[in-house]
Amino acid sequence: MNYSAIRYILGYVLMIEGVLLLLPFLIGVIYWEEQGKWYLITALVCIIIGFLITRKKPDNFLFYLKEGCVATASSWILLSILGALPFWLSGEIPKIEDALFETVSGFTTTGASILSDVERLSHCALFWRSFTHWIGGMGVLVFLLMIIPLGGGSNMNLMRAESPGPSVGKLVPRIKSTAQILYVIYFGMTVVELILLLLGGMPLFDSVTLSFGTAGTGGFGIRNDSIGGYSPYVQWVIAIFMLLFAVNFNAYYMILLGKWKKGIAMEEVRCYFIIVFAAIAIIFCNILELVGNVGDALRHASFQVATLISSTGYSTTDFDRWPQTAKMVLVLLMLIGACAGSTGGGIKVSRIVILVKTVAKELHSYIHPKSIRKVNFEYKPVAHEVVRATNVFFVTFMLVFTASAFLISLEGKDLVTTFTSVLACFNNMGPGLALVGPTQNFGPFTPFSKLVFMFDMIAGRLELFPLLILFHPALWKDAILHHK
Amino acid sequence: MNYSAIRYILGYVLMIEGVLLLLPFLIGVIYWEEQGKWYLITALVCIIIGFLITRKKPDNFLFYLKEGCVATASSWILLSILGALPFWLSGEIPKIEDALFETVSGFTTTGASILSDVERLSHCALFWRSFTHWIGGMGVLVFLLMIIPLGGGSNMNLMRAESPGPSVGKLVPRIKSTAQILYVIYFGMTVVELILLLLGGMPLFDSVTLSFGTAGTGGFGIRNDSIGGYSPYVQWVIAIFMLLFAVNFNAYYMILLGKWKKGIAMEEVRCYFIIVFAAIAIIFCNILELVGNVGDALRHASFQVATLISSTGYSTTDFDRWPQTAKMVLVLLMLIGACAGSTGGGIKVSRIVILVKTVAKELHSYIHPKSIRKVNFEYKPVAHEVVRATNVFFVTFMLVFTASAFLISLEGKDLVTTFTSVLACFNNMGPGLALVGPTQNFGPFTPFSKLVFMFDMIAGRLELFPLLILFHPALWKDAILHHK
Repeated sequence: MNYSAIRYILGYVLMIEGVLLLLPFLIGVIYWEEQGKWYLITALVCIIIGFLITRKKPDNFLFYLKEGCVATASSWILLSILGALPFWLSGEIPKIEDALFETVSGFTTTGASILSDVERLSHCALFWRSFTHWIGGMGVLVFLLMIIPLGGGSNMNLMRAESPGPSVGKLVPRIKSTAQILYVIYFGMTVVELILLLLGGMPLFDSVTLSFGTAGTGGFGIRNDSIGGYSPYVQWVIAIFMLLFAVNFNAYYMILLGKWKKGIAMEEVRCYFIIVFAAIAIIFCNILELVGNVGDALRHASFQVATLISSTGYSTTDFDRWPQTAKMVLVLLMLIGACAGSTGGGIKVSRIVILVKTVAKELHSYIHPKSIRKVNFEYKPVAHEVVRATNVFFVTFMLVFTASAFLISLEGKDLVTTFTSVLACFNNMGPGLALVGPTQNFGPFTPFSKLVFMFDMIAGRLELFPLLILFHPALWKDAILHHK
Repeated sequence: MNYSAIRYILGYVLMIEGVLLLLPFLIGVIYWEEQGKWYLITALVCIIIGFLITRKKPDNFLFYLKEGCVATASSWILLSILGALPFWLSGEIPKIEDALFETVSGFTTTGASILSDVERLSHCALFWRSFTHWIGGMGVLVFLLMIIPLGGGSNMNLMRAESPGPSVGKLVPRIKSTAQILYVIYFGMTVVELILLLLGGMPLFDSVTLSFGTAGTGGFGIRNDSIGGYSPYVQWVIAIFMLLFAVNFNAYYMILLGKWKKGIAMEEVRCYFIIVFAAIAIIFCNILELVGNVGDALRHASFQVATLISSTGYSTTDFDRWPQTAKMVLVLLMLIGACAGSTGGGIKVSRIVILVKTVAKELHSYIHPKSIRKVNFEYKPVAHEVVRATNVFFVTFMLVFTASAFLISLEGKDLVTTFTSVLACFNNMGPGLALVGPTQNFGPFTPFSKLVFMFDMIAGRLELFPLLILFHPALWKDAILHHK
């Protein structure tokens, strides 16, 4: 294991976080808020430690998938611990486990909150909460790849560990350029949303924070009723951008290159929109009577479908009070999640498509045992390795989900709360149903449950394996031997 | 497709059902019940039709897996339709869909009932309900294999379609002998339970019907409080036999041969008992305060664990009122299910073990990418094909489960009812939680939902593929072409 390279990367991550923490400090200065100083102090601590750690370059940058996973998982844990400090030091979130929960929820773009009254927070805290979504959405290490030079396949192993989806593709041969293109698209779309929100008459601070939350498919709001209090125009803009940020970014890259036909023809993107429109139609019919008006029903249905499939977690209405069929569809959307290669969470549309096709192939093989049919996806046969990895991912997902639900059930809360709270954290969604519904929060859980939720949020964001490996005994044995 | 062989098998299945229907008629004669005549009439109809169909032998008995699946699935549907007739004709179950539901639930050893008052039923109806469990437990086609001669690998394809588990093994080289051994063990164990129940002072009729229900891991009771009203001795006997019937029958075969060490050392059996004891321990601690007495708490915990992991569905107490952790453990037991090669339902312990080991192997491969470690099960490497099939089974299970839950959600019942009712039918359990808890029944559902449940029960019993194939368009196209 290349410990010196991991140390070097962690140092860089710290420095980046330090620089990013200067922004909420700046917001503190603008609004003349006393809490701002804690962001500056944490920023300086991060930069100094990061600088000291990175002074000695590692002997080599050779990186295997193992190192990629360990570096990624530890980066995310480190980011969360340091990112939580200002919340706790300023006293705005008095308990350390709550501050940590809120930060993990932010970076993993979950958007689950322990706060019952967010309007009480200072501007710098609100800004930092939303900004963590934006940072976590595209990934810190993807950002890192643009600035530090890792050789050969090493950077690919970092990218594989952090990026969602069954198979990570490079858009262009050089990883560095891929990372740059991704960030350009990400930044550009955020700016477009920001402008559209400003045009709707939304204040600048609200527009910036909500754009961050949409772009990262996070979901932290700055008002207690989330998006419910804003105009229908604003709600539609946010709904559409939630849907857009959950699309595979490869499609945007194609469109940028002028190959827009190829972008639109992507199988995952088409399946994604079919699911979206089907879900909106079912929910619309199901809630029409309850809402009582076609326009509102369509808006609420579209918004909630967008927020759940993209795993954002904003809400315009308390969908926990919706009829059972609508709630069932919402739970299924939570499970499916966004497209691979987007900022959203969940199992991912491409995995679901591959799994369904695998089952279809299996049935076909019973009827025509001699036919050797391959599973096709995106117009080409899926490599056996990808099918296998997708199956294993699904099984692991279910096992971790089950184990977490068991641990949360020790709280003694009802089964719907237990299941949907785990699902909401694991899929980086935010709100669930019942006691974790859109009008509720995660504050009342025990510190132990919050620890489980934090594990699930990071495991969900990093797609399980990078975090699970960090707890693998073989790795610790290796580390102890190395230390001796 | 070898239609004439399928027709021939269906004819035999009809004749067997006809003969079996004479038993409840006999019970009717003994108790001098008027309803008995309908069993005789149905029996005669079955025997006559069966006889006519089997008069012409098929040209050949060549059987592929496809034919095995189609023959099995259609046999089960046919058995259910004809088995439902006496309930409906006698007027004891007035609605045809309810009579069908009850019979499907019987043959698939689910034990879910639409009746709110079973004590109202005649003795012949109660006997037939429990007897369907015993018939369905080991499988009708396995029985058939003892009496009709199918050549070469053909009988193996029938057995593969009906028997549960990731890989069906022959106990001895000849399938016919395997089927005989299985039925000898099955019959013998049923008789032992019967004797133990009689020794406990239970009336003969109760002992026979409850032994049938235990052996098939079915769960139809003959009293409204299921097993709750019997003595603790009876409850312990039934609990232990439920656990025993959910053990892989290969273990019993080994023990029969005197290789009892090898039988006990079976990995699946050991894992099964570890799960059982762990679950009893957790539930015991969780309900001790509620029950208030160590003996009762241990008995209720053991009984409910036995009933749910074996997918039987008898109950001694209303576990829907238990604390959340206990309920969560019960839901997990429902999912896991019994051992492969037993009469129980669920995903099966061996599949869970293989899946967990696959995930462990995946994690290991991240850390040691060059190691080529195989998944081991029962002290030998698992064939790649079995791992693949297990993964595909699990994915298919989840997809069918999700689709069914969506269809049931159209009822508008709460999410716990929706999820656990589907789970209870799909895993051939019987009771679920909330509105389908142990003191409730499936009567209030719409006919459409009952159809979904029936589909799930048969799909669960036949482990998905045989029934799914019956609805595959390619098969129907083939059938239509053949007809022309």
